[in-house]
Amino acid sequence: MKVNMNKNIQALRHSAAHLLAAAVLELYPEAKPTIGPAIDDGFYYDFDFGEDQISENDLLGIEKKMRFLIKGWGNFERQEISADEAYEMYKDNQYKTELIDEFVKDGEILSLYKSGNFTDLCRGGHVEKPAINIKYFKLLSVAGAYWRGSEKNKMLTRIYGTAFFTQEDLDAFLKMKEDAKNRDHRKLGKELGLFVFSDTIGKGLPLWTKKGSVIRRELENFVVQEEIKRGYEHVYTPDIANLDLYKKSGHYPYYKASMYAPIKIEDEEYMLRPMTCPHHFELYLSQPHSYKELPIRIAELAKLYRFEKSGELSGLMRVRSFCLADAHIICSKDQAKEEINNVIDLIEYMTNVFGLEAGSDYSYRLSLGDRQNEEKYFKDDQAWDFAEDVLRSVLRERNSNFVEAENEAAFYGPKIDVQMKNVNGKEDTAFTVQYDFVMPKRFDLKYTNDKNETEQPIVIHRSSIGAIERTIAFIIEKFAGRFPVWISPVQVKILPISDKFLDYAKRVETQLKEAGIRVEIDDRAERLQAKIRDAEMEKDPYMLVVGEKEAFESTITVRKRDTKDQVVLAVDEFIKNIRAEISSFFHD
Amino acid sequence: MKVNMNKNIQALRHSAAHLLAAAVLELYPEAKPTIGPAIDDGFYYDFDFGEDQISENDLLGIEKKMRFLIKGWGNFERQEISADEAYEMYKDNQYKTELIDEFVKDGEILSLYKSGNFTDLCRGGHVEKPAINIKYFKLLSVAGAYWRGSEKNKMLTRIYGTAFFTQEDLDAFLKMKEDAKNRDHRKLGKELGLFVFSDTIGKGLPLWTKKGSVIRRELENFVVQEEIKRGYEHVYTPDIANLDLYKKSGHYPYYKASMYAPIKIEDEEYMLRPMTCPHHFELYLSQPHSYKELPIRIAELAKLYRFEKSGELSGLMRVRSFCLADAHIICSKDQAKEEINNVIDLIEYMTNVFGLEAGSDYSYRLSLGDRQNEEKYFKDDQAWDFAEDVLRSVLRERNSNFVEAENEAAFYGPKIDVQMKNVNGKEDTAFTVQYDFVMPKRFDLKYTNDKNETEQPIVIHRSSIGAIERTIAFIIEKFAGRFPVWISPVQVKILPISDKFLDYAKRVETQLKEAGIRVEIDDRAERLQAKIRDAEMEKDPYMLVVGEKEAFESTITVRKRDTKDQVVLAVDEFIKNIRAEISSFFHD
Repeated sequence: MKVNMNKNIQALRHSAAHLLAAAVLELYPEAKPTIGPAIDDGFYYDFDFGEDQISENDLLGIEKKMRFLIKGWGNFERQEISADEAYEMYKDNQYKTELIDEFVKDGEILSLYKSGNFTDLCRGGHVEKPAINIKYFKLLSVAGAYWRGSEKNKMLTRIYGTAFFTQEDLDAFLKMKEDAKNRDHRKLGKELGLFVFSDTIGKGLPLWTKKGSVIRRELENFVVQEEIKRGYEHVYTPDIANLDLYKKSGHYPYYKASMYAPIKIEDEEYMLRPMTCPHHFELYLSQPHSYKELPIRIAELAKLYRFEKSGELSGLMRVRSFCLADAHIICSKDQAKEEINNVIDLIEYMTNVFGLEAGSDYSYRLSLGDRQNEEKYFKDDQAWDFAEDVLRSVLRERNSNFVEAENEAAFYGPKIDVQMKNVNGKEDTAFTVQYDFVMPKRFDLKYTNDKNETEQPIVIHRSSIGAIERTIAFIIEKFAGRFPVWISPVQVKILPISDKFLDYAKRVETQLKEAGIRVEIDDRAERLQAKIRDAEMEKDPYMLVVGEKEAFESTITVRKRDTKDQVVLAVDEFIKNIRAEISSFFHD
Repeated sequence: MKVNMNKNIQALRHSAAHLLAAAVLELYPEAKPTIGPAIDDGFYYDFDFGEDQISENDLLGIEKKMRFLIKGWGNFERQEISADEAYEMYKDNQYKTELIDEFVKDGEILSLYKSGNFTDLCRGGHVEKPAINIKYFKLLSVAGAYWRGSEKNKMLTRIYGTAFFTQEDLDAFLKMKEDAKNRDHRKLGKELGLFVFSDTIGKGLPLWTKKGSVIRRELENFVVQEEIKRGYEHVYTPDIANLDLYKKSGHYPYYKASMYAPIKIEDEEYMLRPMTCPHHFELYLSQPHSYKELPIRIAELAKLYRFEKSGELSGLMRVRSFCLADAHIICSKDQAKEEINNVIDLIEYMTNVFGLEAGSDYSYRLSLGDRQNEEKYFKDDQAWDFAEDVLRSVLRERNSNFVEAENEAAFYGPKIDVQMKNVNGKEDTAFTVQYDFVMPKRFDLKYTNDKNETEQPIVIHRSSIGAIERTIAFIIEKFAGRFPVWISPVQVKILPISDKFLDYAKRVETQLKEAGIRVEIDDRAERLQAKIRDAEMEKDPYMLVVGEKEAFESTITVRKRDTKDQVVLAVDEFIKNIRAEISSFFHD
């Protein structure tokens, strides 16, 4: 049933794409239609508008034309034609001509589909009663799109739309879209003044403002403190290294395309580091180790650099330089299972502090290698089997839900991926726990066992909370900017009713500051209502209103962001409460 | 008197260099002598040893020969010779030949000086009674040195030595040298396991170990917290930026030689940043500003990259990438004086926390521009006068001792330099406070004044504590690794007398950890004396000895590093004491 439904909605949306093309050609007769498929949440159609330029302002007119045309549409009529006829029909349209070339080459039968006055070269897959079915649709946006997705081709104009079988479904979708738009971290980042980009500095390189930096610093301090508490050594290693290091690690051939060009220093070539592992191994190698020291857990807030095409950069989600909460656990094979279990504990604790839950906000994926693919995966069947078993048994014993994915492992071993969904429902790997039996060989990592023999440890690569940039993007979207109080850039906004109470407001401010609370006074000559409205826009968790009564009684009127409850408290009491609230996030 | 003394000691040391050359030529007849001047704390002589290689092990033999030869030395006899005679005399010595070429070109009279059997081409300046005067000398070290200091030339062998007029002076100097050697941060860094270098990662790029990272993290947290407390916004900006940014700032032509080669990304060129200023200006420019917001103090722990020749790299003092406690204060001209005063307050507070004092550990230098040098300094006489007056009056009103140095300013304005001496007495600029009237123009920085008009702010560039790497090098040397307790990597070492008391030791450890104290247990099967000796080697501030009596009474025997006092305390009491000691560093 679900499959059919899917098929139907695909047919509906593809039909709507025809309708879109019909309307566009009525309004812009010079436009050249190209392709118009159904996609996950709607459809699009790409046009070459020639001299004409259209914008989102034109969508309403096109939609109106679509609603007018659809009334006269009967069923889609199929007609097979010869290649010659097809070439003749599209002699002025190089895009369709290119498609025909390919169909001919593949020996396909060419078909046209006609409904109303509009005919398109098409393989089929439409609804049966267009005039009845294509009712609940909406055009959504306009974007540039290279013909066939290649930068070498001409940039076409893509019109996105969506269609459903009922008004309710359409409304629900549009509401979800609107909500996602309002939660979009790029939009909120700007509105709340968390980060900016500079054209002069360059693409994909965010600058964190005062406010955004508070979130980042709180997050970073939390990671460092929590990890140290759990037995990690937090270190600092260089952000650049000699190219030889990545050749030694074997990363270079796999990562070359993601790495930036080398920087020549004297007669050596240095790279912006794309990963931390070999740096931590060099640190491990700087002295001999005994089994008594293992596991050694080397952690770092590591700045990494990976190439992203400018077209693929997106806010904090896709940047050209990011800071990874990275670590490498060097331990014996026997210790691997317990260590991986500890890592998952840590991940679940940390994500939980941020209000993210396994199951709803993220899920586990066990990514396996392909024993046959020796180009992509290091050949050692026995090691792969052992490592995959360890990871699988950890997840099973925890009763964690997980899926297994073939051919998604790292080249040096299998891994557990934490898959997170963004506001648009798109799933991404947020962070991973990797079992590595290759690097220890390459770096000749060693320790002396209890029989005084030399042994090789294994390495667990892991991130506790992923890339700081991406994690903050997730958090912004998850909370729609209404941050939990512990990471709120401004935790408390003091609103004096008038200038007369500014002195009292400042005394309250000092008291809060001394208690380590992040506080601001709105000292503008505005009315209280305006101050409240603005503090609400800034999504500050607490507003403290101070006026005559409060100043006289040495109290404050506390207005809570999420409940809008108002309560009068002594300043000390408020401090006690907010401190308790902050520490409640860090339960063990 | 002092001048004469200096002249005399110069003559003594230069004479000793002759003696050194005489001894070397007796022992290594194939060696070619080149030059042998007196220097600040001794003398050296450079030789081309040809096939021979000498090491510091050979110095004793050479010194012995010197002591033997000197007995037969009468006065230095001067003899003038013609160029032809000189060329003939040194026909097998290309170095002396090159010197003769130059003397001839400059029209100098050529002279030889002979004492004992040794004759050298020399301009003179010797002691009158070598056999009596050259008595208290010592050869110190052997190093490679390019002929005339150029890498293009052959590497010669340089022998360093020193000489004094009395045994007491020589002994004092050698003791100072020995002490400096023991305090050398490179030596201590290795002994205490604070940082390492990796040949594979590259030169001048330290890796901070677990222990060194503690010091760095404590220092960084202190800087960030203290600066935020004083009204700075601590931000994060990218470590790389488009080359255009440094062209816009005007830094590029001045800094090009210190910058690494550009990295091509798509069709743009990116640079590892050599400074933070333009990054902070871009952040300032991301929104409009009113006079009410000024001063805006943008601070960052900024990773910077500046080229240093591999031969000039030295431990943490000279690295290729460092982290600067940087800030830019954007304010009106009227606010400049107060802000500069606040910066000096901050510097004196911070250095004081580290036990460094203005006057003894560092001094101020007012670095001025040269109005005539338009190539080196931005032309604006009035602005220079104003800015220099502001800086001078701040120092005067504080009654700070300072020297004025011509021609040491930045290209954009004058500055106050904090000059610090390292263990060898070498003075370096540790950090600076700069007045800048040029960048605001280049970046078109603006604010709206109280009359709603657009005005240009000025910028104060400053560092509170300088480069983290270099500051830690200073701190290591200042304390000879006996760090104040607040930055000690291990604050407390627990020494159980035997395995029987390990459980009790662990209980004490847990209590200390929960109180935020950095603690380790020495659980080796060693005797107490050995454990104490090792903890002393590690220079941990406190040792807690636990045995039967302590376990029974729930106490600890506290042994303090600096006094070696022993006292029995309850654990709580010890925690109270050590916490009080830690917070005593942060007085206001």
